[in-house]
Amino acid sequence: MTSSKSILRLGRLPILCKNNNAIRRQYSSSPGLKTIGFIGLGNMGANMAHNLIKKGHNLVVYDIQSAATSQFEKLGAKVAPTPGDVAAQTDRIVTMLPASAHVKNAYLGANGILQGVKKGSLLLDSSTIDPDTSKYIAGEASAKNATYLDCPVSGGVGAAKAGTLTFMVGGPQKEYAEVEVLLRAMGAKVVLCGGVGSGQAAKICNNMLLGISMIGTAETMNLGIKMGLDPKLLASILNSSSGRCWSSEIYNPVPGVVDGVPSGNDYKGGFGVALMTKDLGLAQNAASGSGTATPLGALAYQLYQMMCSQGYKGKDFSAIFQFLQDNENHN
Amino acid sequence: MTSSKSILRLGRLPILCKNNNAIRRQYSSSPGLKTIGFIGLGNMGANMAHNLIKKGHNLVVYDIQSAATSQFEKLGAKVAPTPGDVAAQTDRIVTMLPASAHVKNAYLGANGILQGVKKGSLLLDSSTIDPDTSKYIAGEASAKNATYLDCPVSGGVGAAKAGTLTFMVGGPQKEYAEVEVLLRAMGAKVVLCGGVGSGQAAKICNNMLLGISMIGTAETMNLGIKMGLDPKLLASILNSSSGRCWSSEIYNPVPGVVDGVPSGNDYKGGFGVALMTKDLGLAQNAASGSGTATPLGALAYQLYQMMCSQGYKGKDFSAIFQFLQDNENHN
Amino acid sequence: MTSSKSILRLGRLPILCKNNNAIRRQYSSSPGLKTIGFIGLGNMGANMAHNLIKKGHNLVVYDIQSAATSQFEKLGAKVAPTPGDVAAQTDRIVTMLPASAHVKNAYLGANGILQGVKKGSLLLDSSTIDPDTSKYIAGEASAKNATYLDCPVSGGVGAAKAGTLTFMVGGPQKEYAEVEVLLRAMGAKVVLCGGVGSGQAAKICNNMLLGISMIGTAETMNLGIKMGLDPKLLASILNSSSGRCWSSEIYNPVPGVVDGVPSGNDYKGGFGVALMTKDLGLAQNAASGSGTATPLGALAYQLYQMMCSQGYKGKDFSAIFQFLQDNENHN
Amino acid sequence: MTSSKSILRLGRLPILCKNNNAIRRQYSSSPGLKTIGFIGLGNMGANMAHNLIKKGHNLVVYDIQSAATSQFEKLGAKVAPTPGDVAAQTDRIVTMLPASAHVKNAYLGANGILQGVKKGSLLLDSSTIDPDTSKYIAGEASAKNATYLDCPVSGGVGAAKAGTLTFMVGGPQKEYAEVEVLLRAMGAKVVLCGGVGSGQAAKICNNMLLGISMIGTAETMNLGIKMGLDPKLLASILNSSSGRCWSSEIYNPVPGVVDGVPSGNDYKGGFGVALMTKDLGLAQNAASGSGTATPLGALAYQLYQMMCSQGYKGKDFSAIFQFLQDNENHN
Repeated sequence: MTSSKSILRLGRLPILCKNNNAIRRQYSSSPGLKTIGFIGLGNMGANMAHNLIKKGHNLVVYDIQSAATSQFEKLGAKVAPTPGDVAAQTDRIVTMLPASAHVKNAYLGANGILQGVKKGSLLLDSSTIDPDTSKYIAGEASAKNATYLDCPVSGGVGAAKAGTLTFMVGGPQKEYAEVEVLLRAMGAKVVLCGGVGSGQAAKICNNMLLGISMIGTAETMNLGIKMGLDPKLLASILNSSSGRCWSSEIYNPVPGVVDGVPSGNDYKGGFGVALMTKDLGLAQNAASGSGTATPLGALAYQLYQMMCSQGYKGKDFSAIFQFLQDNENHN
Repeated sequence: MTSSKSILRLGRLPILCKNNNAIRRQYSSSPGLKTIGFIGLGNMGANMAHNLIKKGHNLVVYDIQSAATSQFEKLGAKVAPTPGDVAAQTDRIVTMLPASAHVKNAYLGANGILQGVKKGSLLLDSSTIDPDTSKYIAGEASAKNATYLDCPVSGGVGAAKAGTLTFMVGGPQKEYAEVEVLLRAMGAKVVLCGGVGSGQAAKICNNMLLGISMIGTAETMNLGIKMGLDPKLLASILNSSSGRCWSSEIYNPVPGVVDGVPSGNDYKGGFGVALMTKDLGLAQNAASGSGTATPLGALAYQLYQMMCSQGYKGKDFSAIFQFLQDNENHN
Repeated sequence: MTSSKSILRLGRLPILCKNNNAIRRQYSSSPGLKTIGFIGLGNMGANMAHNLIKKGHNLVVYDIQSAATSQFEKLGAKVAPTPGDVAAQTDRIVTMLPASAHVKNAYLGANGILQGVKKGSLLLDSSTIDPDTSKYIAGEASAKNATYLDCPVSGGVGAAKAGTLTFMVGGPQKEYAEVEVLLRAMGAKVVLCGGVGSGQAAKICNNMLLGISMIGTAETMNLGIKMGLDPKLLASILNSSSGRCWSSEIYNPVPGVVDGVPSGNDYKGGFGVALMTKDLGLAQNAASGSGTATPLGALAYQLYQMMCSQGYKGKDFSAIFQFLQDNENHN
Repeated sequence: MTSSKSILRLGRLPILCKNNNAIRRQYSSSPGLKTIGFIGLGNMGANMAHNLIKKGHNLVVYDIQSAATSQFEKLGAKVAPTPGDVAAQTDRIVTMLPASAHVKNAYLGANGILQGVKKGSLLLDSSTIDPDTSKYIAGEASAKNATYLDCPVSGGVGAAKAGTLTFMVGGPQKEYAEVEVLLRAMGAKVVLCGGVGSGQAAKICNNMLLGISMIGTAETMNLGIKMGLDPKLLASILNSSSGRCWSSEIYNPVPGVVDGVPSGNDYKGGFGVALMTKDLGLAQNAASGSGTATPLGALAYQLYQMMCSQGYKGKDFSAIFQFLQDNENHN
C-alpha cells in the first residue's frame, strides 16, 4: 500500500481530527443500510470509505497502517485485525489497494478475505490491477460461493473526495443491480463493462490512451512553442480542431494554459508519474498476453519509465512536458 | 499536384457539367467584389474556388490540368496560361497546391507569380508546406512589394465544399482585416496565428497530435476488443473519460462505432494515409530544425510510412486500425 | 510444445528411420555414464537427446507426442508415461520446452517431475522462460532436496544437431562441475552466469540485442539500397566499420549478401519470427519487473508483434527486411 | 564550424607550439607532390591537414578562425583570406566542415570556392552532410568544369591524427585513381561507394546502425545488470554470441568493461552526442526523402535529441548508458 500512498497522500482528511462528537453525529448510520467492509484506507480508499459513512453505512475497516484505521475508529467504524476478520463480520466488502500483489494478499493470503468469507458475499475490488488476477480471484471466490467483481475507478483523489468517481465494473449481470446502488454511494457513474476482468480492461484501455494523448499533447505544445506559437493560442486551435483531446483541453501540460491543473502548480498533485507508469505497464502486459501490437502504448510506457528513473516519479503525469523541454543545465 | 488529387478526388463537381447557363446565373459576380486569382484546382482548390464564385467573385484561374480549368471557364472564369499571368491580371491570389515543390514552382518558377506580381498584391497560400518555405517565399514577395501569407486549412474536402474550412493564417497584422474577409468566403473560421509561417506551424502541430491520437485510439480499441470489450461500449467509456479525443469521439477508426465516417465505408474517402504521412513528415522536419524531441510524433510518422509501403496509401488515415489488427492470412 | 515445433521442425532426423540395429550399435551406451531423463523432444530437444545417446548415455524420455518418443524407443531409450515417471527412474534430467507454461506443468503439475523427484537430483532446464519462473521452480525443487538450474541455449537447431550449442547456466557453484560435463555432451560452450535465473537473464539480454541489431541492420540496408548503394558493398563497409554487428556480418537479412542464411532461401528455416517475438516479450517482462527503460527493445518487440499479426510468423526473424520494404501491391 | 569544434577539440596540437624550425624540417615538402588547398581546420581537419604536410604536400589553408590558420602558417602553409582565394591558388582542395550550411557557404558563397575554381579542379569534401547537398554542389562544380566528390570519413579524431581514417567516396570512376592516392595520405582505407552522394549515403547508413546498436547495447547491459549479471561476464557472453556488435565489443558503454574508451573516462572525448544526433538527423532526412520506414532509426534520433536537451550534448555518445540508468536524485 505504501508506494501509492506516498504519491497520493496530499493532505489526509484533516477535517476528521477536530471534533469527533460532531462528526459522529453528522455521519450517524441509517438503520436500513448494510454494514460494509472496507480494506485499504489510502488516499483514495479513505475518501471513498468516508463517503460510505456519510451515506449512513456502518463500516468494518482494515489497513496495514494503524494511523489510517484509527481515524475511522473515531468515526464509529469497527477495526478488524485482518482482511479475513473483515470478511467474517460482513458480507459486503470493498477493497482499494495499490497493486496486484496487495490484492492477492488481501484475498488469498493466510489471513485473507477468502479465509473468512461468508456465502453470498459481494466482494468489490476497486484497485487497478491486471484482469487476469481479477479473473483468478473471482474463480477462487466463486469456489467459496462468493462473488468477486472488479470495479476500478477513474477520477482520482478529487473525485474520490467529492463522491463523483466513475466505476467500471466487470462481473455477473445478476448481482449488478445491488452493486450499482452500493457504488453510487461513492461515485457519480457506474458502468457494467462485461464479465469479470472487463472493468480492469476498460480502465487499462482508457489510461493507455490517456498516456499517449498526454505525451502527444506535450510534444505538440513544445514543438509549437519552439516554432514561435503562443501556447494559449495553439491550445485553442487544437481544441477547436481534430487535435483536440482531454489532455489538450482539460488538463493541458503547459503551465498557464488551463487554470487549476497541476501544470500550473509545478506539477504537484494530480495523477502521479509512478501511477501512470504502472497503468501503462498493465496495458503492455495485457497487450503482450493477447498478442496485440501497441507501438505508441509501448513507447509511452518507456517514456514514463524514463521519467521514473530521472526523478519525476512524484510529479503529476503532465510533467512529461517538462521532461521533453530543453534543459541544458540539467545534468 | 497529381499525388494528392489521385487520393482526394472523390467525385469531381459533377453538378457543374449540366446546365451552365443556370449555373452562371446562380453565380453571377457582384460588382463591388475583387477579382481573385486561383491557382491549384484540385479537389480542395476546386471546391474553394467554387465558393468564391458563389459569393460573387470573378476568378482568373490556373491549373496544370486543362480539364480542371475548363470547368471553371464554363462558369465564367478567365483561364491564365501560367501563374505569372494570373498575377499580371489580379492582385488578390489564392494558391492551393500539394507540396512545397509545387508552391516554390508556382511562386518562384520561370513563369511564376513573382515574375508578374503587382505592387501591393496579397498572396494567400492555403497549401500545407513547411514553414521555412513559407518564410522564404514571403521574403521574395516582400522584395517585390507584395505580401505573402500562409493560410493552410483544416476540415478536408467536405468542409471545402461546404465552405466551412478553418484557416490558420501567418502574416502581418496590417493586412489581416482584408485577408479575413476574403477567406471567410471559403471558410467558417479564420485564426491569425502570428507572423508568416505560423499558420503552417499551427497546422503541422494539429495534424501531428491528430496522427498520434488516431493511432493511440486504434491501438486502444484493438486492445480492448482483444480483451473482450464491446467496441461501442469501450468508445462510450473513453468518450466520457480522460481518454477522450477527436479520433475516439468523432472519427472512430473501428467500423460501426460512429456513423458516416470512413471506417464504416472500408476506409474510403476522408483524409488519406499519404497526406497524413506528408504532414507528419513536415512535423518531423520542423522538430528536427528546432532541435525538439517528439518521440511519439516520430513513431507515428514511421507507422504511417509503413502503411504507405504496405498498400494502404489510398485509404483514410483511420485505416491504422486495420493495419494493427491480426491478419494472419495477409502475406 | 506445439507452437515452436511447427516453426522449427525442418526435417525430423530422417536417418533414424532406416536401420535401427545399425544405429543401436553406433550408439551403444557406455557403462560408466549416467542415465539421463529427457523431457521435450521437439526439434531442439530431439537433436540434443540424440547427442547424449551418441556420447553413450542411456535415456529415459518423455514427450506429449508419442511420435517423438517412439523414435527414441527404437534407439534403446526407455519411454516414461509422465514427467514424474522420468524423475522416478533417474536423478539427472534435462528439459527442453517451448514456454513457461509448459515448464511449470512439467515440473509442478500433477504428474510433474517434483512429484517423483529423488533426493540429490540435478534438474537442467534448457527452455527459454522468464527468470522468475526459474527461480520459483528452483525453490520448489530445493524443498525436495533437488537442484534446479536454468541452462538456456544459443545456437538454434543447427548447433543442437552439431552439438555446438552454448549453454548459459544459472545455479549454485557447487553443482556446476558436474553440470558442465553433462552439458558439454550437447554443446561446445558452457558459461556459469550466476545464481539460478541468471542463465535466462543472459539469454534474454542476448536476444534482445540481437532483435534490435537485426532490425537496425534491416533498416540500414533498406535505406542504403533506396539511396542507390549496392547491398554487398554497403555490408562490407558496415562490417569494416563501427556499424558492424552479427546481423550485418554473419546473418545479413538482404538476400544475396551472405551465403547460406535464411534471407537467401525466402526466409525459410533459421530462428522464427514467433520465437524472436516470444524472447523480446520475455525481455520486456524482465524490464518491466525491474523498472528498466528499454525503448528500442520495446519497439523491437512491437515490430515483431506486428510481423506476427501480418503473416510473417513462420519466417526467419531476418524477414524484418522484407516487412520494411516497399510492397505497394501488398494489401 | 564552431559547434563541432567546441565538442571535439580535446587538445589542439600542442606539439606545434614549441620549435617550429625543427617541425619545418620534419615536414619539408616534396617537390613532386601537388599543393593542396585545405578548408576547415577544426579538430578533424587540422589533424588531416597535418598529415598532408607530413607526407610532403604544400598547403594553402583557410579557416574562419585565425588561430587555426596561424598554426599552419608557422609550418609553412600559405593562408588564404577566403575559400575562393584557396581555389584560385590550387586545383586540389579538401574541405572538412561541420554541416551542410557551412559547406554550401564554402562552395557557393560570395567568396566561395566556385567563384575562384580552376578548370579541372578536384574538390574533395570530407564533411558529413546530406547527399542531396553533395549532389547539388557537384552539379554546380561541373558547370565550372570542376569535379566535386563527397569523401566523408569514419574513425574520429584519433584516426584523423594517426592517419588511419576510412574515406567513403562518391563520385566519378574516372577521377578515382588520383583521389585515392590523395586521400591515402590521410587515411588507411578508401572505398568508392558509387556516384556523387554515395559516400555520404554510406556514412549515414553506418552511423544510423551505430547509433541503434549503441543504444541497444546500453539498454541490454543496463537490463542485465539490473537482473544481477556481472557487466564483464554479460559483455563476454554477448560478444561470443549473436548479440555481438562493435558497441558491445570495442566501445562498451558500461564503465570498466573495455579499457581505454570514453565510458571509462566519464564519457569524455570520443564521438559527441551532438554529432551523433546530427548524423541520425541526416539519416532521418534521407529516409524521409526516399519514403523509407526506419522505426528504430527514428527512435534512436529522438533519444539522442532528448540527451541533447537534457545536458548530455558534450559527452561521448556512449553516455546513453548513463542516460538510461536510474538516477532518482537527478531532477
